[in-house]
Amino acid sequence: MYQDEYSLLRAFISNFINVTEDEWKLHRDSLTRRFLKKGEFLLRAGQVCDHVSFVTKGYLRVYSVINDEEISNYFFFENNYATDYASFLTRKPSDTSIIAMEEVEVLQLNYSNMQMLYEKVPSWQKYGRLMAENVFLIAEARAKTLQHNSPESLYVKIMQEMPQVIERVPLQYIASYMGIQPESLSRIRKRLMEEKRVS
Amino acid sequence: MYQDEYSLLRAFISNFINVTEDEWKLHRDSLTRRFLKKGEFLLRAGQVCDHVSFVTKGYLRVYSVINDEEISNYFFFENNYATDYASFLTRKPSDTSIIAMEEVEVLQLNYSNMQMLYEKVPSWQKYGRLMAENVFLIAEARAKTLQHNSPESLYVKIMQEMPQVIERVPLQYIASYMGIQPESLSRIRKRLMEEKRVS
Repeated sequence: MYQDEYSLLRAFISNFINVTEDEWKLHRDSLTRRFLKKGEFLLRAGQVCDHVSFVTKGYLRVYSVINDEEISNYFFFENNYATDYASFLTRKPSDTSIIAMEEVEVLQLNYSNMQMLYEKVPSWQKYGRLMAENVFLIAEARAKTLQHNSPESLYVKIMQEMPQVIERVPLQYIASYMGIQPESLSRIRKRLMEEKRVS
Repeated sequence: MYQDEYSLLRAFISNFINVTEDEWKLHRDSLTRRFLKKGEFLLRAGQVCDHVSFVTKGYLRVYSVINDEEISNYFFFENNYATDYASFLTRKPSDTSIIAMEEVEVLQLNYSNMQMLYEKVPSWQKYGRLMAENVFLIAEARAKTLQHNSPESLYVKIMQEMPQVIERVPLQYIASYMGIQPESLSRIRKRLMEEKRVS
């Protein structure tokens, strides 16, 4: 059990690097706690994403608008960072928006504090490397998944690898994430449930 | 002018971090120089990618085979690392192959030497972070580009951002990279040249 949301983040970091009490204090003091209502934006397209936001409660949806159509690109759940890391790294305006899908609480670290930690905390470089490797693996897997999978096998993959998406995200956003119509997703779900019943 | 291929790599690294003479020697001694003929494989699908290979001469093509069809995913030119970084990081078999498109020379650093450098060279963590951020930005840009662009605007983007692809890669592989037929790419090229002539 965690005493508070800061302990949740500390435990997360400890999975990757060792931080001393002083280093943790430095990091903790550089965080801003933020609360979002359902439907509030963590980031709007056109803004530079100036923070990485560790989610301690609720979840968020990343989407872009293409030809007047909203495409869901990703979902961020508790115990992970929500950010447009490309915009964060390049300091260029984001082309996506990040919206709270429930009541959301985050601990935000902004860009200049991130650079401060890279300078002052030796192990933070390693942490940054592991985080960057992780977002790379996610981006790569997403690109390959969309390129190579039939919608049905893609849905099975999401069930296995991102069960929270299936459990918590409304159907229309999952369909949009998969690049298909909600009706097609309903048919896939029905078919998979029938197969399950038979086997 | 560079005296040799090792100096090329050293200059590349110096763009990102400062390394002492001893650190550079440690790195240099952990490299393997490798020569590939045109058509030789740096990596075959099914193998774990155990190295990052700094290209000092020639270029390579990354492709995967999907439904018996060869899809070109990426191209690696001189003065960059060729690797399947996802396979390298996760130690899982690659689903892509990397093939030499010309006579190729690389300086290879294998996985265990990479870990050795992370341990022994303090600034190497920062280098690893910057490299991971870079491959993330490439993977993200590729996913977005394929998702959002018409073939014509995609081609213009490649011309601007990866001119070497246009100059050096045979048409059929560029078409495959763009996810279109070679004939469609020929039409796009013709149209763009006519526009240029008019304007």
